[in-house]
Amino acid sequence: MGQEQTRSKSIKIRGDERVEFHNQVDYCIGTGRMGLALQQEYQEQLRLVQELIGFKHIRGHGLFCDDMAIYQEYTVEGKVHAEYNFTYLDRVMDSYRSMGLAPFLELGFMPQKMARGEQTIFYWKGNTTPPKSYEAWKHMIQTLLRHLMERYGADEVVTWPIEVWNEPNLNGFWENADMLEYFTLFKESFVAIKEVDSRFKVGGPAVCGGSDKPWIQGFMEFCEEQKIPVDFVTRHHYTTDFPKYEGHYGYADLMDPEEGFSNLHSTREIVDSFPQYNGLPIHITEFNTSYIPNCPLHDTNQNAAYIAHQLSRLGDDNESYSYWTFGDVFEEQGVPFTPFHGGFGLVANGCIPKPTFWTFAFFKKLKELEGYCVYRDDNTVIMRMETGEYRGVAWNRTCKRLDDTITLNYECKTETNELCLLTKRVDESTCNPLKVWHDLGEPANLTKAQIAVLQDVAQPFVQTNSIFSKDSLACFRINLPENAVVYFELKPVHRNADRGYDYNRIMQS
Amino acid sequence: MGQEQTRSKSIKIRGDERVEFHNQVDYCIGTGRMGLALQQEYQEQLRLVQELIGFKHIRGHGLFCDDMAIYQEYTVEGKVHAEYNFTYLDRVMDSYRSMGLAPFLELGFMPQKMARGEQTIFYWKGNTTPPKSYEAWKHMIQTLLRHLMERYGADEVVTWPIEVWNEPNLNGFWENADMLEYFTLFKESFVAIKEVDSRFKVGGPAVCGGSDKPWIQGFMEFCEEQKIPVDFVTRHHYTTDFPKYEGHYGYADLMDPEEGFSNLHSTREIVDSFPQYNGLPIHITEFNTSYIPNCPLHDTNQNAAYIAHQLSRLGDDNESYSYWTFGDVFEEQGVPFTPFHGGFGLVANGCIPKPTFWTFAFFKKLKELEGYCVYRDDNTVIMRMETGEYRGVAWNRTCKRLDDTITLNYECKTETNELCLLTKRVDESTCNPLKVWHDLGEPANLTKAQIAVLQDVAQPFVQTNSIFSKDSLACFRINLPENAVVYFELKPVHRNADRGYDYNRIMQS
Amino acid sequence: MGQEQTRSKSIKIRGDERVEFHNQVDYCIGTGRMGLALQQEYQEQLRLVQELIGFKHIRGHGLFCDDMAIYQEYTVEGKVHAEYNFTYLDRVMDSYRSMGLAPFLELGFMPQKMARGEQTIFYWKGNTTPPKSYEAWKHMIQTLLRHLMERYGADEVVTWPIEVWNEPNLNGFWENADMLEYFTLFKESFVAIKEVDSRFKVGGPAVCGGSDKPWIQGFMEFCEEQKIPVDFVTRHHYTTDFPKYEGHYGYADLMDPEEGFSNLHSTREIVDSFPQYNGLPIHITEFNTSYIPNCPLHDTNQNAAYIAHQLSRLGDDNESYSYWTFGDVFEEQGVPFTPFHGGFGLVANGCIPKPTFWTFAFFKKLKELEGYCVYRDDNTVIMRMETGEYRGVAWNRTCKRLDDTITLNYECKTETNELCLLTKRVDESTCNPLKVWHDLGEPANLTKAQIAVLQDVAQPFVQTNSIFSKDSLACFRINLPENAVVYFELKPVHRNADRGYDYNRIMQS
Amino acid sequence: MGQEQTRSKSIKIRGDERVEFHNQVDYCIGTGRMGLALQQEYQEQLRLVQELIGFKHIRGHGLFCDDMAIYQEYTVEGKVHAEYNFTYLDRVMDSYRSMGLAPFLELGFMPQKMARGEQTIFYWKGNTTPPKSYEAWKHMIQTLLRHLMERYGADEVVTWPIEVWNEPNLNGFWENADMLEYFTLFKESFVAIKEVDSRFKVGGPAVCGGSDKPWIQGFMEFCEEQKIPVDFVTRHHYTTDFPKYEGHYGYADLMDPEEGFSNLHSTREIVDSFPQYNGLPIHITEFNTSYIPNCPLHDTNQNAAYIAHQLSRLGDDNESYSYWTFGDVFEEQGVPFTPFHGGFGLVANGCIPKPTFWTFAFFKKLKELEGYCVYRDDNTVIMRMETGEYRGVAWNRTCKRLDDTITLNYECKTETNELCLLTKRVDESTCNPLKVWHDLGEPANLTKAQIAVLQDVAQPFVQTNSIFSKDSLACFRINLPENAVVYFELKPVHRNADRGYDYNRIMQS
Repeated sequence: MGQEQTRSKSIKIRGDERVEFHNQVDYCIGTGRMGLALQQEYQEQLRLVQELIGFKHIRGHGLFCDDMAIYQEYTVEGKVHAEYNFTYLDRVMDSYRSMGLAPFLELGFMPQKMARGEQTIFYWKGNTTPPKSYEAWKHMIQTLLRHLMERYGADEVVTWPIEVWNEPNLNGFWENADMLEYFTLFKESFVAIKEVDSRFKVGGPAVCGGSDKPWIQGFMEFCEEQKIPVDFVTRHHYTTDFPKYEGHYGYADLMDPEEGFSNLHSTREIVDSFPQYNGLPIHITEFNTSYIPNCPLHDTNQNAAYIAHQLSRLGDDNESYSYWTFGDVFEEQGVPFTPFHGGFGLVANGCIPKPTFWTFAFFKKLKELEGYCVYRDDNTVIMRMETGEYRGVAWNRTCKRLDDTITLNYECKTETNELCLLTKRVDESTCNPLKVWHDLGEPANLTKAQIAVLQDVAQPFVQTNSIFSKDSLACFRINLPENAVVYFELKPVHRNADRGYDYNRIMQS
Repeated sequence: MGQEQTRSKSIKIRGDERVEFHNQVDYCIGTGRMGLALQQEYQEQLRLVQELIGFKHIRGHGLFCDDMAIYQEYTVEGKVHAEYNFTYLDRVMDSYRSMGLAPFLELGFMPQKMARGEQTIFYWKGNTTPPKSYEAWKHMIQTLLRHLMERYGADEVVTWPIEVWNEPNLNGFWENADMLEYFTLFKESFVAIKEVDSRFKVGGPAVCGGSDKPWIQGFMEFCEEQKIPVDFVTRHHYTTDFPKYEGHYGYADLMDPEEGFSNLHSTREIVDSFPQYNGLPIHITEFNTSYIPNCPLHDTNQNAAYIAHQLSRLGDDNESYSYWTFGDVFEEQGVPFTPFHGGFGLVANGCIPKPTFWTFAFFKKLKELEGYCVYRDDNTVIMRMETGEYRGVAWNRTCKRLDDTITLNYECKTETNELCLLTKRVDESTCNPLKVWHDLGEPANLTKAQIAVLQDVAQPFVQTNSIFSKDSLACFRINLPENAVVYFELKPVHRNADRGYDYNRIMQS
Repeated sequence: MGQEQTRSKSIKIRGDERVEFHNQVDYCIGTGRMGLALQQEYQEQLRLVQELIGFKHIRGHGLFCDDMAIYQEYTVEGKVHAEYNFTYLDRVMDSYRSMGLAPFLELGFMPQKMARGEQTIFYWKGNTTPPKSYEAWKHMIQTLLRHLMERYGADEVVTWPIEVWNEPNLNGFWENADMLEYFTLFKESFVAIKEVDSRFKVGGPAVCGGSDKPWIQGFMEFCEEQKIPVDFVTRHHYTTDFPKYEGHYGYADLMDPEEGFSNLHSTREIVDSFPQYNGLPIHITEFNTSYIPNCPLHDTNQNAAYIAHQLSRLGDDNESYSYWTFGDVFEEQGVPFTPFHGGFGLVANGCIPKPTFWTFAFFKKLKELEGYCVYRDDNTVIMRMETGEYRGVAWNRTCKRLDDTITLNYECKTETNELCLLTKRVDESTCNPLKVWHDLGEPANLTKAQIAVLQDVAQPFVQTNSIFSKDSLACFRINLPENAVVYFELKPVHRNADRGYDYNRIMQS
Repeated sequence: MGQEQTRSKSIKIRGDERVEFHNQVDYCIGTGRMGLALQQEYQEQLRLVQELIGFKHIRGHGLFCDDMAIYQEYTVEGKVHAEYNFTYLDRVMDSYRSMGLAPFLELGFMPQKMARGEQTIFYWKGNTTPPKSYEAWKHMIQTLLRHLMERYGADEVVTWPIEVWNEPNLNGFWENADMLEYFTLFKESFVAIKEVDSRFKVGGPAVCGGSDKPWIQGFMEFCEEQKIPVDFVTRHHYTTDFPKYEGHYGYADLMDPEEGFSNLHSTREIVDSFPQYNGLPIHITEFNTSYIPNCPLHDTNQNAAYIAHQLSRLGDDNESYSYWTFGDVFEEQGVPFTPFHGGFGLVANGCIPKPTFWTFAFFKKLKELEGYCVYRDDNTVIMRMETGEYRGVAWNRTCKRLDDTITLNYECKTETNELCLLTKRVDESTCNPLKVWHDLGEPANLTKAQIAVLQDVAQPFVQTNSIFSKDSLACFRINLPENAVVYFELKPVHRNADRGYDYNRIMQS
């Protein structure tokens, strides 16, 4: 590292400010293909995520891929009949629901036997061609939804959002990126679903960046023209340049986040330009920094700090934003060889939370109690809770390493003489399992002892401090080395004196 | 604090040294009275202790106290008969064994109905008088042992050591501290036990310091005279001065540890002075710093560092040494009002490990693998393991606060170019739940959220570092602020290059 | 046994009948003294009960007894101050709440240090004398309630009913059974509680049978006179004659249940005779067959069938009825020597459900779904559920053994051709752990293998049958040997033919 | 059913007989392909099997199939290199070992990238062609074994038996059933393995019936000729005729078991005819009744009784016999649509034990204690255990339904006056989850409530009886309706009279 610099910032809070901040951190999370949800390691990672963060929805690919075995055919007297196998679907849905999750259903990809073509995507060979018969497609969707409603209750299932396909604006995901064919798929699906129950919410076109503008524009025009009362619009959001590949990995530079926000805002503007769709919810059904599953960046503290900033802003234009993905049980480019390999997950294989995991956990803690935002800038967001305490997150995001530490000096109004400041710190020296794995020699196959060490070092460093207010102001500072993310709570302390343990006496002995 | 000073020490290790060090850290642990073992919180604390430390034996008072309900009487046609209720005993023993523990049986105190007098001790009123009838006492012991042998197997039960009574050299524990009566009790018990199975190992006199010399001398003479082939000698070991009471607590100063070791050595000398008892095992069936259960010292990092030093030395003269106690489910002075209250336990109520807990966990890790000691001094002990790695513990013990940091500079011989140094640090700023509890306002009744914070901050701070050897020497340093205890492992690293994740590239981006 | 006789009864159900049946099976359950709730075995038994039955409230003695350690005193400059220790109380309440239970608080007995006299009750010596100072008593109650409200939320805690003392109409429970002193205690408590929060519901006088009429009458008059807006009335209900003691057990004959219902009705009439208390809720805060904890009857199928009948009737006059007790961790007459010993519990020590456990589980299943009662007589009760299925319980209660089997022939209206009848049977030959324990030799201390066998045989025998309706009637019969209790569900079957597994073909091969 | 007949048989046991009976019930169990072992449902079923039966080894296909992802290639400067991914392998092996299992390794099938041809087998498309390069094959095997030895310890891993390929005598499993190519594969594998560690035990040819004789003969000749010190011989054993398919299922008739034993014996004779291989262990690495995974027979009590008979005999000629398979997480013919579907498993999906599960559990209980066989015939086997108790299994096997009940009358010598007979009964009316599933309407997707019912009815019916001996003989009878399997224990009872609970008095009240 070069020479270290420190910048300092002063933040004053009266406590009655009302600052805009739409915290949808826990609305939805991404996942590897649905068939992987049968795996035990997947379930364990998801359980960890749900215990410490707790999302409401989960979205991924592969509902109709062959490993889920849903669409089957059998022949009687020379005639082919469809039949549906929900054995695995139920197992997956049962497990989601046991962890408090509901799916954000993505309709795709195509069962081999129903597919018009042979094009597949990924190591796991999802077929990405249109159906031979839209009737068959519709029948499958309707049968599936009716099955889910019978099993989980209609009132419950109609609250599960439904998105049609994934990134049809890429050749790989949709043969020829054929926009008109996608619109057909969308309309047929939309109609089929609403026939089952008009309460379902259905959206698209699930595009990634690049050609997002023409696709969003085209999609809205199509809906308008066809008088489709689409319920929401979906798109994706990744924030790195093209990766440079070297060996098994791709290395990518982070973009200026404002570029991304501006691109997202363009979607908002296109949608709002259609009077009947003005204000329609936009769901970012995937976001992350890099869009490849072997980008070491994902495993770093830098990723955690960059995402903290994203979480502070993405709610401005969007109804939700779903991080891609919760864990590293993931096979798009094959089965990972090593626990750290630049996967998308919040959790590395071996149930090791990565730094970005804690970014989500910290933003979730801002929602645990009722409260309102009193301050937001590019390094911190602060809430005042109904209990009178303050909760906040602070971060020092970098795109390039500058050896630049930031000190935030907070002055918060309080009616209490004594307070306790609790901080949970995730930075490169306190919570950096990637470094530890590197120091251990980058073992491909972790022993139990190595897993235990990695889980230990993947915890935030927690501290408390006594704060005594002066002139009704509680003052404290938080140091943020580069890529640090810190959660804090500032709580009134009411000391119960009579059993008083003389702490100072002990400390001076 | 005053001005801080740093001392530095250099430690060179060839790796083939063989240094004396009898590490019996896990032989035995103390417990609150046996009736408390029925409690759920007790079981949870003990489970934590067994998972992370793992003792072989457990010893405490109260086997025959009325809450265990063992000794009962019933009357038929005006005649009183003894009957024995092993419902609770079995529950306790089943739970111990399910956690890998065997008891170190302490015979005491007296069932009310069998007692000669009314004297009791403690909040829970253990009767500390001799039996009305030694026949009844013997019958009870024999019935109990036979029951245990039937339930758990004779070969197993005869390996459980048996100690007769507790601290008979104190009036409170044994009416009038009547030495002759104790010898009777001992002899009667000894004979009764050996009648059941001569393989049992039986010892005494379980004295505390003060009058230990005349009692040990007297006991050995008695055994010699009576031709009792006593199997081992027991005594206790506490290392503070008289406490000064203030409010609900007693504050005590630590003694120079050499004073204590010298007192212990006197026991060794007395025993060895009897030719037929020369070399007889001595078990310290209780030790701690302070001997009162409301001494804040127990909860501190100072205690942890002092005990680290004790653990490095107590094996020199003694077969074992049993810390008093594993947890704070304990009622000798009543039920604790607050989670931290100066209790004896390694674990505070709420399942919060205290700093001293980690001292034991660290010394236990020196025994996890086969190895031998290569270095020991007053600040560190180092083992070389069969795997070629080094493991060690380092500490900076104080009796009075001097603001004195020690830096240990290690140079260890190695055949490997790259190594990984793993450290687990417990000091006043990294692992100090007492301070956090104080900062939180010393709440008497912890909420779940407070328990979670306290458990978080009660973990050692774990780090790794890459070490590159030079001239076959791996050099590293460990800083020890006052009262720090640090565990370390130095392991060879063999890097598997071909999947190579370019860690440095990521860190510089 | 003598000669067996069979009676037969025909039961026709249209399905739209509306028959009175107040099923309060799950409102409240009794427990051994609160201090025992700290024990692990207690928690395990209670967990079993909550998983398979699921009560809302739990009521027992001993809140203020010394083993709970709530009331303490300390002296400063010669003056005694009260202080309160809620360590154990919180542990107990936390555990209750984690199992979905709220207490039905019983205020009692007297802390030794606050007691006016020395009289105690039970092996565990609960002090049953009035307080030296009603001010101290009130302060203790108020401090306790405020503590609970702070910890668990005021809105929650005010829904916990509060009963003042237990069975003051017995000398043993209240010195001299002094009615006037009890009224003072009640009034002082009532006022103290309402001062804390007027939403609390407070009742008494918690009398047992015998002198129940004068006490209820007196209590209502006292309340009327003193203008106390008492919230509910409480009493107990046991249904055996005086036991005959032999060895360690007491054997008692069951009374004609109508006698008991008539006695209960007298309470209803007395209360209703006070215009301002007309219709006031009556809670039976204890009921069982025998009132002694060593009556073998409790462990039998006879008890289960008798209680089934009670559960079908007790709601007629009473708001609730709390079986005494959920488990056999119980010490009123000392610690049980053997797993079966005639204890009150639904569960025997070793977590073995007794037959009566299933009576409660079966009646609870009648409440799992919305529904209404369509039939009730002295052998069966039947519900029609919102799903269209029928659920019922049938029993063959005896007071004396007559070798009398009953066959119930049901004809239930249905719109379905095929139905499935599910039965769960508890009778002397299918679910009789007491007999098995006897066959095993009545072992005092169960091995793991014996516990496994006893748990296996303590399950209901479950069967299904296909029923095909004729003329829209589904007909089936249930045979009830003496002391049988049978739960049944009759459910429409819609067969999904196309995967059809040819079951008949297999069975004929 | 037709008219029922009862046959009766008398069995007299002195207790000192020594009858041949090689009970290898727990040596090995079959499994669906290894990739399925990643699934949570698989793990849960296996855990149930291990808890109640407890096998030592597990064997199945698919170690090298692509879903395990072991064999991978990457290209550097135009040259292809092999690399190995053990991520999933370790997960599977870790899970096996955590349940006390070691693999019986089957080498196969071929990684797609290493395969010479395109032929695949099963829904999951295992490639069944030889390797393009035997060097590559050998390198893969050696790398895999070395990896396992590093992870689990060499001394441990060399005890895992290794079998080369599966059923090469079938075209589907080995292209053209090419015997010479198989011998090459065997030899190359054998040599490769022994190079890693000569302690490994390696065998083949893993043939199924049909062409077993020429293949075994050819294999032994090949080994002899090539001087291969093969460690054991393997084959399979199924005992039904060709199934008749109807709808989704195949129905098959059971063969006379003697036919099968005779076929097995021919293998023994062939092997023994080679002097240097005389007595070589033969492992039946697969056996079951039907060899198709959709044969309803597998789910029946008939299967359970037939297998009981098999278990009493298979050890006569064979070192071990591995039931195919432990559970119904299985995909050879696709994913099961319904929980009962004639799958191979001991456990149906939903963790429901089938009747045959208990046959294994019962034979395992004959090995829990030390003992020796005192009686064996075609309906029962009886052991005398070191504790003095008797344990036995009895069954009434049918090939066709005859409505034929058998009564076995046992007379066992005993020194005890009172005994307890414990029976666990599995027959068509007590433990028949298939029937219950049928009665429930054969639901494809079980609700939690349905799973609970099916698990309840899938338990053996357990009873005890007091037996009083006469003339030192304990007499009892066991009734066996068709397809019943009954386990029994006959244990001495020593009654502890003084707490005597008067059971008879209660039962007569």
